Amino acid sequence: MARSATSPLLVDLYELTMGQAYFDAGLADRQATSDLFYRTLPAGWGYLLAGGLEFALAYLEELSFADDEVAYLESTGLFTPPFLDHLRALRFTGTVRAMPEGTLLFPGEPALEVTAPVIEAQLVETVLLNELHLSSLIAGKAARCVDVAEGQMLVDFGLRRAHGGEAGLKAARAAFLAGFDATSNVLAGREYGIPTAGTMAHSFVESFASEETAFRAYARSYPNHSILLVDTYDTRQGIRRAVETGRELATRGSRLTGMRLDSGDLVDLSLEARALLDEAGFEDALVFASGGLDERDVAALLEAGAPIGGFGIGTKMVVSADAPYLDMAYKLVEFGGRPTMKLSTGKATLPGRKQVWRVIADEHFAFDVVEREGAPGPDGAEPLLAEVMRGGRHLGADTLQDARERAAAQRERLPSEHRRLDATPYDVRIGPELRALADEVRATAGSGAGSGGQRRV
Amino acid sequence: MARSATSPLLVDLYELTMGQAYFDAGLADRQATSDLFYRTLPAGWGYLLAGGLEFALAYLEELSFADDEVAYLESTGLFTPPFLDHLRALRFTGTVRAMPEGTLLFPGEPALEVTAPVIEAQLVETVLLNELHLSSLIAGKAARCVDVAEGQMLVDFGLRRAHGGEAGLKAARAAFLAGFDATSNVLAGREYGIPTAGTMAHSFVESFASEETAFRAYARSYPNHSILLVDTYDTRQGIRRAVETGRELATRGSRLTGMRLDSGDLVDLSLEARALLDEAGFEDALVFASGGLDERDVAALLEAGAPIGGFGIGTKMVVSADAPYLDMAYKLVEFGGRPTMKLSTGKATLPGRKQVWRVIADEHFAFDVVEREGAPGPDGAEPLLAEVMRGGRHLGADTLQDARERAAAQRERLPSEHRRLDATPYDVRIGPELRALADEVRATAGSGAGSGGQRRV
Repeated sequence: MARSATSPLLVDLYELTMGQAYFDAGLADRQATSDLFYRTLPAGWGYLLAGGLEFALAYLEELSFADDEVAYLESTGLFTPPFLDHLRALRFTGTVRAMPEGTLLFPGEPALEVTAPVIEAQLVETVLLNELHLSSLIAGKAARCVDVAEGQMLVDFGLRRAHGGEAGLKAARAAFLAGFDATSNVLAGREYGIPTAGTMAHSFVESFASEETAFRAYARSYPNHSILLVDTYDTRQGIRRAVETGRELATRGSRLTGMRLDSGDLVDLSLEARALLDEAGFEDALVFASGGLDERDVAALLEAGAPIGGFGIGTKMVVSADAPYLDMAYKLVEFGGRPTMKLSTGKATLPGRKQVWRVIADEHFAFDVVEREGAPGPDGAEPLLAEVMRGGRHLGADTLQDARERAAAQRERLPSEHRRLDATPYDVRIGPELRALADEVRATAGSGAGSGGQRRV
Repeated sequence: MARSATSPLLVDLYELTMGQAYFDAGLADRQATSDLFYRTLPAGWGYLLAGGLEFALAYLEELSFADDEVAYLESTGLFTPPFLDHLRALRFTGTVRAMPEGTLLFPGEPALEVTAPVIEAQLVETVLLNELHLSSLIAGKAARCVDVAEGQMLVDFGLRRAHGGEAGLKAARAAFLAGFDATSNVLAGREYGIPTAGTMAHSFVESFASEETAFRAYARSYPNHSILLVDTYDTRQGIRRAVETGRELATRGSRLTGMRLDSGDLVDLSLEARALLDEAGFEDALVFASGGLDERDVAALLEAGAPIGGFGIGTKMVVSADAPYLDMAYKLVEFGGRPTMKLSTGKATLPGRKQVWRVIADEHFAFDVVEREGAPGPDGAEPLLAEVMRGGRHLGADTLQDARERAAAQRERLPSEHRRLDATPYDVRIGPELRALADEVRATAGSGAGSGGQRRV
């Protein structure tokens, strides 16, 4: 299980002030249920991968306020002594149902559902969103790379431009979950057991009197682990010098691992590199490419016949450059046993506790149904939400390897039109009992004035 | 000074394998100088704010490998015992010159320069890029919001969709540096002394039997700090109910702080809210707006005459949605006293140690000149790079307040065409001595084959 170092003060202020107001209103023990779901997918994306659950559960399990943290809250003047005492004793005691990491999911489906006393359920909103958002976003983006890579090696190179070290670490994990082969991030290698990989930098080449001296120096230290960077000066010269270094290695019984192209016309240059490597008898040596690549570049390069055996995917994957956030929400769906919903323009929600059913036909995913929890699902459909925490205790952790295998197995069962870079939307239906409940709640929501009645879900 | 909890293993693998190769080549003590700079700005952006320096310096000052970290590296089989001993003893002993946080900067200007034994200078690349990137990116994005907000209150609401908790915390700090007024992030309030602010969530409103009951409950707990959220059901009804709650508060000697609009036509709704508040005598009550806003929305709302006194800016600011990364690099410019440069297609660099001079005319910034360090600058120009670390020791920390004031003062001196949302590029020139050096180095770079001679910088 992932360790959490998350402060309980990593929270939006209103989670705490609403807690105070619930407390003052005598509602501290009222049970609330909230859903976490994605409203839409980024343009072109066909699916998401559930990610971040293990981080979220670690946070919930360890949530508590230390004395100095309560003292800080006291210093704001916003909270009463009885409420601060309540926070001092607070632990997360609720139940969590969720899709395990690596599950494929689609817009409108709850990825996670929390049922807890309302102050707890509200307090954890900020971190639950933050954790699931980051990991699901990067796993989804990385999966798009895997979908087009035709089995060629994919290495995460993103740490330097991830949004912080934590983001770099979690992005490396999310990319591996999605099917990446390795990461340049040494800490991710240690923390999560992800294979690490790397090549060399332009600065290394520039530090030596000549390119060939630099190649020889690196090859001396790593005679069987050298991927030589060939574009510091003249790339075609660099390719020839790398092959020459390979010949020198071969005379000493070692072998060149490959070379890296980081700029220029990667189709032409990779063809030339491959031809010269093959001509020299280095058929096993890799032509590795990097330099601002994303999934569309990978697809275009392979379609153009570039003989590239490995890709370093950095910035554009770890910040999900074309879609740097997901439209997601954590919404109250039940309070004190009463189903609730929001009718705000363009942001309406569905009430009550839910289950997501996945209908399989011919061993492929056909469509999903979001239905009221407890209502029957379609014949033979698989339920996706399972209890993962009860009474604040984690009910058995999933490993990263489990999640990675789940993602791979489920992607194979998703029809290919939903795995293309410009994907067809997958069919997610609302079950009849959930639809009936929504109609019922909408008719009375907001009470009194009955104003909700005319709004569409 | 900011505390660093950054592991020395938060690094790209190649920084360490290159270290091994330098070590084996007998170059461990050779001095290297590297520049950190931004190649280009995102579309429309006129400037960046230097950010993240205090985090970077904290990391450098505390950099060291613990035994378990060295043991992990040993387990990879990639490093020799003498090099692992070298790492065990390694501290950052170098010199850093940098622009202080809050300095306005432009493409091609070094924001930071490291001079240190090459293994140290290389090892720190990943974290230096990561730290400066995140803080400069978000400060730059937040500054665009400040540039159009006409002095209205700006509050960071981004924590939930920042890329991790660390990113949320550092984004809150960067936004405050850039001129934001407050953050919803309680931990940022505690760690950095940033004022915290917040309103209420839709879930709070839905937890009560009716909207008016919810408003009353919140106002009971916060009779003088209530910003009521009015769009959970019917927004026009919500506005009226909020005004009604204000009347109830007034009868008890309290005052409504304001109301928040989070969806719908914010121009129309804010006009209606403002009119009803004024009619009820609540001229001081704030109309606050949120809901996926960025700087272009803020500008458009204010231009359309929306009487909005405060904006909650969340996701699109903390992930810098239109430009989620900066094109930046950390490049070797001198090795063992010899100036170096990279000639890669489209990624060429300028050699040697540098100074950035800012030329002021009529109390406004006229243009900048990047010149060789030690060469004279233009008459009366201000040098922007100063020594901030020597022998691995921080030479006196800047406070966040200093940086915030610096940013505000410098932005006032930047001509307005560079502060527009679609800004005119600022003039950055290359000094004559730097240009001569680049010509000289280019002619010999890559050595032997003389291949570099034909490439353009």
